[in-house]
Amino acid sequence: MPSAVDDYIKQNESRFLEELLELLRIPSVSTLPEHTEDVARAAGFVASALERAGIENVQVIPTANHPLIYGDWLHAPGKPTVLCYGHYDVQPPDPLELWKTPPFEPSIRDGNIYARGSADDKGQMYMHIKAIEALRSTNGGKLPVNVKFLIEGEEEVGGESIAKYVPKNKDRLKADVALVSDTELFADGVPTLCVGLRGLMYLEVEATGPARDLHSGMYGGAAPNAVYGLIQLLAKAKDGDGRILIPGVYDDVAIPDPVEVESWKRLPFSEQEFLRLVGSTELTGEPDQSVLARIWARPTFEVHGIAGGFTGAGAKTVIPAKAVAKVSFRMVPNQNPDRVLAAFKKWVKDNTPKGIQTEVRVLSAAPAILVNPHHPAIDVAAKTFSETLGKPTVFIRGGGSIPIVGEFASELGIPTVLMGFGLPDDGLHSPNEKYRIANYYLGIRTIAHFLERYGEIS
Amino acid sequence: MPSAVDDYIKQNESRFLEELLELLRIPSVSTLPEHTEDVARAAGFVASALERAGIENVQVIPTANHPLIYGDWLHAPGKPTVLCYGHYDVQPPDPLELWKTPPFEPSIRDGNIYARGSADDKGQMYMHIKAIEALRSTNGGKLPVNVKFLIEGEEEVGGESIAKYVPKNKDRLKADVALVSDTELFADGVPTLCVGLRGLMYLEVEATGPARDLHSGMYGGAAPNAVYGLIQLLAKAKDGDGRILIPGVYDDVAIPDPVEVESWKRLPFSEQEFLRLVGSTELTGEPDQSVLARIWARPTFEVHGIAGGFTGAGAKTVIPAKAVAKVSFRMVPNQNPDRVLAAFKKWVKDNTPKGIQTEVRVLSAAPAILVNPHHPAIDVAAKTFSETLGKPTVFIRGGGSIPIVGEFASELGIPTVLMGFGLPDDGLHSPNEKYRIANYYLGIRTIAHFLERYGEIS
Repeated sequence: MPSAVDDYIKQNESRFLEELLELLRIPSVSTLPEHTEDVARAAGFVASALERAGIENVQVIPTANHPLIYGDWLHAPGKPTVLCYGHYDVQPPDPLELWKTPPFEPSIRDGNIYARGSADDKGQMYMHIKAIEALRSTNGGKLPVNVKFLIEGEEEVGGESIAKYVPKNKDRLKADVALVSDTELFADGVPTLCVGLRGLMYLEVEATGPARDLHSGMYGGAAPNAVYGLIQLLAKAKDGDGRILIPGVYDDVAIPDPVEVESWKRLPFSEQEFLRLVGSTELTGEPDQSVLARIWARPTFEVHGIAGGFTGAGAKTVIPAKAVAKVSFRMVPNQNPDRVLAAFKKWVKDNTPKGIQTEVRVLSAAPAILVNPHHPAIDVAAKTFSETLGKPTVFIRGGGSIPIVGEFASELGIPTVLMGFGLPDDGLHSPNEKYRIANYYLGIRTIAHFLERYGEIS
Repeated sequence: MPSAVDDYIKQNESRFLEELLELLRIPSVSTLPEHTEDVARAAGFVASALERAGIENVQVIPTANHPLIYGDWLHAPGKPTVLCYGHYDVQPPDPLELWKTPPFEPSIRDGNIYARGSADDKGQMYMHIKAIEALRSTNGGKLPVNVKFLIEGEEEVGGESIAKYVPKNKDRLKADVALVSDTELFADGVPTLCVGLRGLMYLEVEATGPARDLHSGMYGGAAPNAVYGLIQLLAKAKDGDGRILIPGVYDDVAIPDPVEVESWKRLPFSEQEFLRLVGSTELTGEPDQSVLARIWARPTFEVHGIAGGFTGAGAKTVIPAKAVAKVSFRMVPNQNPDRVLAAFKKWVKDNTPKGIQTEVRVLSAAPAILVNPHHPAIDVAAKTFSETLGKPTVFIRGGGSIPIVGEFASELGIPTVLMGFGLPDDGLHSPNEKYRIANYYLGIRTIAHFLERYGEIS
């Protein structure tokens, strides 16, 4: 039977949607300097939304890069405190030409909102705020638990500012559990809690060869080529299947618990459907690992792009003097970013081709995290989620990284409920990213009920 | 003792320089569509210059891409006909940030003109026009030989239009010899004729993997990466020294005549100086070949750049769906572009990694050429050149490609005098391309005297 909260949410759906669309129109691309003002505008929008929802002490906190937003409501003595986290920054939208409708002009088609950031993470972060509004509006301005909000604008660029802020503000951020909605349902209609995330180390590898770009006719055959040197180096990082060949990278990899591995086999996972989402002729990766193990419990080495040389229209016969590759490692539990970096640097040094110099730069690094699925907050979350969707909650891992979850564990000593409402085909970081409108409302309801029930167990 | 022609050139040096600077100010970058109008403007400039020099029947001939320019002066009955070729288009100037002064605002420093196209080829092509002016002005409007001019605007993009024009206009272009100034002195002060040029085949290799760019957290470990697939493919093309590993590519390579190889050993060549020009820590290439053989008589495979994935500032964790590499083969005498292409296509097919599709596109293809050094015009050119510089002329090859020289041989049945006045450190295709002003005047004098002497032998 629908509660007062459910009724309130139902009655306000169209306004909740409009507010989200307004936020999605702000191109808060954190990695591109030309969008710095847009990112600041998105921060202001979120801060206002928190205030309108009745959150107190709302502050937009300047950082060396993009602002953090803090706010709290602490009038439930004796009740637990939930630290709500989300991010208002988004990935760059390129390649733009592949978007059916512009990335920052949200378009509604077939019950979905198409826009950059719709699922990752504006649409999910905003559910928290609307859940708070619904709870307060139907309960005389009161909340069933104490809440704190910490929302960042650098999640897509490594989250450096929040990583500095958390250790310095442990008292302010003190809580019993963190709540993050930046993940997805394992499959449509399946209540899902994520209890593990891979870490991420993002690097640049720069190769230099000749002192300047050379004419390939005059020097070709005798002069080193920086782009080709980088290609020859990076090609050695993995074998034809996708197994990493860099010595030491697999050394510390934790083997998942057999019980957990067993539970993955019961998930409604179709390799065929996964291949359809990927859209290639076949999958790659370590042949002796299941697909879920490959994306959840195994490290990866990925090359995201190479800049350097000539890539414009037509022909330029140049031997490039310089090339930079963007590469990353996804890391799994027990892997230490410093050790992986040391192994990579040594390997780069040992394998740099003749006539080429290389340099490795770290853009960000965060280890993997694992959450205890038997923690009381996780337990309440699982039960609530089962009720709203009418099915048992499944526990999965995620292949992506939410670096702050590791900080919450190590600095604040609290676990994180990773309760997300995206779908596997939402296209995060891709053209035509979408978020299903029904899941937006489902998320608001589920979060509101989770907070209610969590307030009851104390 | 200086002749009347020498005096005329001396007296008009500053005007000749000003005219060239004006031409260099036109950014006639043939490969970039946004410069189409500039290329047309450069064509108009050259046509006017020809008319002012007394060349008749000057025509700007429209083509599918950039215009050709034709002109002639045919009033020396019984004398040979020289077909003067040059190009008024230039390479793109990027990377712009490495130019000390803007590429299309010619700057004079230390006796050099710094500008894109100063040496390749505007500065050299324009010498022909000024030599004609000097000859006519000092000889009552007459020339010692018949001349035809054919000047193109697509040399830097494969020369498709001129390659179509020549076979269809054999009568119009009938001549005894072609004259091209698009090469360089072997060393400062050494009169040099080029008697061999490598061919060039410029290709694009496109790799596709996933249907769209994917989130590397969600799919990393199981999804193919188009950029990495292309890297793994291309890395196999050469070994660590630079030897090409693509089966069949070396099959037809002609071994140079031992006499020619012997003569290369007597050239004032310093590997140390060559390394200094390259600016890297060491040279690469086939270890069993001399440096001159590697750049003149051996084929190369070069990767000029890879587009695809993320290469902007900061971090984007994307598994790229698509990647395109610009690659080329330099070919030597006896290699057939069609056979090299077939070998490459087969190799690409056989080595394309799992989950990746590849496609090869040809942007241009022209075979290598060799000129008989004992041809009378080459002989006269060598003698003239020896006189203007006071040293024996050396015969060398060039590693670059001037595709039209092959067309002149096969379609018109004439050899080409490759008499260029650049210097090895001119930086063709590189930032800060330069041309020495003294060599510009030297070129005008030497060409004028070559035409005079060539007129005497008939």
